[in-house]
Amino acid sequence: MTITGGGIGTGWGRARETERIVSSHADFWYWWADRQRAGHHHVERIPLTDLDQWHFDQRSGNLAHGSGRFFTVEGLHLLDGTQVRHAQPVINQPEIGILGILVRELDGVLHCLMQAKMEPGNLNTFQLSPTVQATRSNYTRVHQGNAVPFLEYFTADRGRAVVDVLQSEQGAWFWRKRNRNMVVLVDHDVAPHEDYRWIPLPLVLDLLGQDNLVNMDSRTVLSCLPIDPVDEEPATPLRSSQEILSWFTDAKARCAWHPRLVPLREVSAWERGTEHIGAEDGDFRIIGVRIESSGREVVTWSQPLLEPLGPGSSVLVIRKIDGVRHVLMQAKAQPGLLDLVEMGPTVQQLPGERPSDLEPPLRAVAAGQYGSSLYDTVQSEEGGRFHHAMTRYRLVEVGDDFPVSVSAEYCWLTFGQASALLRHGHYLNVEARTLIACLRHLL
Amino acid sequence: MTITGGGIGTGWGRARETERIVSSHADFWYWWADRQRAGHHHVERIPLTDLDQWHFDQRSGNLAHGSGRFFTVEGLHLLDGTQVRHAQPVINQPEIGILGILVRELDGVLHCLMQAKMEPGNLNTFQLSPTVQATRSNYTRVHQGNAVPFLEYFTADRGRAVVDVLQSEQGAWFWRKRNRNMVVLVDHDVAPHEDYRWIPLPLVLDLLGQDNLVNMDSRTVLSCLPIDPVDEEPATPLRSSQEILSWFTDAKARCAWHPRLVPLREVSAWERGTEHIGAEDGDFRIIGVRIESSGREVVTWSQPLLEPLGPGSSVLVIRKIDGVRHVLMQAKAQPGLLDLVEMGPTVQQLPGERPSDLEPPLRAVAAGQYGSSLYDTVQSEEGGRFHHAMTRYRLVEVGDDFPVSVSAEYCWLTFGQASALLRHGHYLNVEARTLIACLRHLL
Repeated sequence: MTITGGGIGTGWGRARETERIVSSHADFWYWWADRQRAGHHHVERIPLTDLDQWHFDQRSGNLAHGSGRFFTVEGLHLLDGTQVRHAQPVINQPEIGILGILVRELDGVLHCLMQAKMEPGNLNTFQLSPTVQATRSNYTRVHQGNAVPFLEYFTADRGRAVVDVLQSEQGAWFWRKRNRNMVVLVDHDVAPHEDYRWIPLPLVLDLLGQDNLVNMDSRTVLSCLPIDPVDEEPATPLRSSQEILSWFTDAKARCAWHPRLVPLREVSAWERGTEHIGAEDGDFRIIGVRIESSGREVVTWSQPLLEPLGPGSSVLVIRKIDGVRHVLMQAKAQPGLLDLVEMGPTVQQLPGERPSDLEPPLRAVAAGQYGSSLYDTVQSEEGGRFHHAMTRYRLVEVGDDFPVSVSAEYCWLTFGQASALLRHGHYLNVEARTLIACLRHLL
Repeated sequence: MTITGGGIGTGWGRARETERIVSSHADFWYWWADRQRAGHHHVERIPLTDLDQWHFDQRSGNLAHGSGRFFTVEGLHLLDGTQVRHAQPVINQPEIGILGILVRELDGVLHCLMQAKMEPGNLNTFQLSPTVQATRSNYTRVHQGNAVPFLEYFTADRGRAVVDVLQSEQGAWFWRKRNRNMVVLVDHDVAPHEDYRWIPLPLVLDLLGQDNLVNMDSRTVLSCLPIDPVDEEPATPLRSSQEILSWFTDAKARCAWHPRLVPLREVSAWERGTEHIGAEDGDFRIIGVRIESSGREVVTWSQPLLEPLGPGSSVLVIRKIDGVRHVLMQAKAQPGLLDLVEMGPTVQQLPGERPSDLEPPLRAVAAGQYGSSLYDTVQSEEGGRFHHAMTRYRLVEVGDDFPVSVSAEYCWLTFGQASALLRHGHYLNVEARTLIACLRHLL
């Protein structure tokens, strides 16, 4: 891969480009502080009944926008035969959006064009976001003003797609939500923009060590980057890729859940109140927020957000088996996933879930009483839909006393095997993908 | 791969095994004729209202079995925003069944344990079927008599799974139906059974040249068999595997369909009559049949079947590009597919669909006016759910005058690329898989 120039114009462009390259932590934080100062963003909690243009549909009880766009809060029933064994509200946004990172090789190092982006649910306003986060409504209406910068690179063959895959998002809160995860490689200058910087990939990965900085959308896209063949273990994995596929197929075939999207009014334990949608034993609620954002222009809107009532926890167990590093994946069923089962981290717990439900060695790992911690950081989940949703992500390395033989819910994969599956959608869930991105940071 | 013996017991078993090996067309037809004579099977059309234990649900209008088992006939709405742009009945059978072929190497040749199996919707009663076709009800109730022969090889790790993947079935007629396609390799004798024979893989593939003989379930499992590396083209494909994945992701992202399962009574253009469920412009109807089957025991039951009102047509275009054989796949959306879009044959038409909707070169291919026919055979679709459902399958080789540049709905893949995708589910639809199996027959 070489950077091709193009005469005087490019030389000039290159000079300006340099100003928009962040090459150290100091550079990054300088730009980041500058972005915080550049605008004023205020998010205020308001009653659901005060949301502008949002209403509870008379017939279904669903919370929806008057335009029919954006998303709806509907009901989900998990059926066992004809019996409802679990019911909850769920966010339904059937559109497929684009999460895209533009990459470019500069001085032999891959750089990512990252964005300082505000989301209403972020506890810290700004997080480091992909080049593009666009809903389908965004990208099919680009000519009506408010065009999404750099979107054309992901929709019009302006570069070479090295990642392009539909990946799921939170199966506990979304109804079959997927986004198109893309990485597009360019070899020329792009238009400058104050909210964007070219950041070397190693630095982006390093920033994953900060709490609540690299947003969920960035993490999922980064996880899908193909690994450099030189980083790949030449080693013999415990299980062949066919054995892993067979284990996964078996887990799907054993899952007898039948989820259905239903009108929210049929989720009877949840109250659709003025202030929020909630239930006595619910581990989240749906709240309303009003946002006033003043950068180059003042924008005001209001929308519902899902507020988890506590942090989640995800732990990926790592162990060397015959000298080869393996991660322990779990076949995890979640009612909102398109095909119900995807591979999750070894331990994946929603707010309120207790480690006591786990098998003994995993309980000890989850409690921090066993294994050595390689990574332990709190990250935020999607701030466009969730309010202050945080997950404590951990990578824990265990020793030879941790059993290689595990129950049918679990399977050991090498990092290379996990990465290979990420070329395809619906294998690794969004929590597992965050941890795969964090694991890259350590390699 | 070697066949391991095991002393006297195995030697004796091997002698009996030999009797159950079919090694020529003549052997096959001799056994096949014998199977036809072995029992009496009578299928009779009856009114839906005469079906035993099946009824139209008062509230939903769905056609269902009193036990809540088997399958239901429900409604499907295809929404454009909140507008219903298409509505039809659909078969809903959420369980994942097993379609499994047991294979074994004998004298250096892979043999498949195939079954002569009657299905009520088969126009010729018997078709050549996989070792196991089992619904989840079958295999979770195996101890209540009527055990499915050889099922234990697919549920209890008795051999090595070389194929194990969930694959979709007809997206025009089923609601998100998938089955677990398995091939399990054994190296020892299995119990003899008169309805089963070990048939060399080349002979099974050769039998694909017969009309309506190798059933749909066999064809889909055969298509998933990994290809021998020596058969694989060493050649450079037109498009890299990443380009193919990107093309496919793009097609999915562009599909704005929103299908929903609804009560059948909401499919207003379709009449739920005494004789059948049908519509004036429908290309199928739901009928009732009663089956009396007397082999070793007499079994009688009745059930609904979906009857297409004419044959379908599927054509896969093949072209050498830079000396390498490619097939032209179509990104085909169908309302009943889990993720809506899968890769279908170049031309895929339901009864009633007209070739005149196609682009000119494809219209000529579909009309048989262009290209040379490599394969042209009528095959049956699933006889357990469809009544006399037939599709004319064709492989048509075109010359250098056929354009390499195709619209965004199409993509050229090598046979090796298509086979590699079949390790994963939901890439190639069931019609494409039949044609991939047939293509093997020619290689």
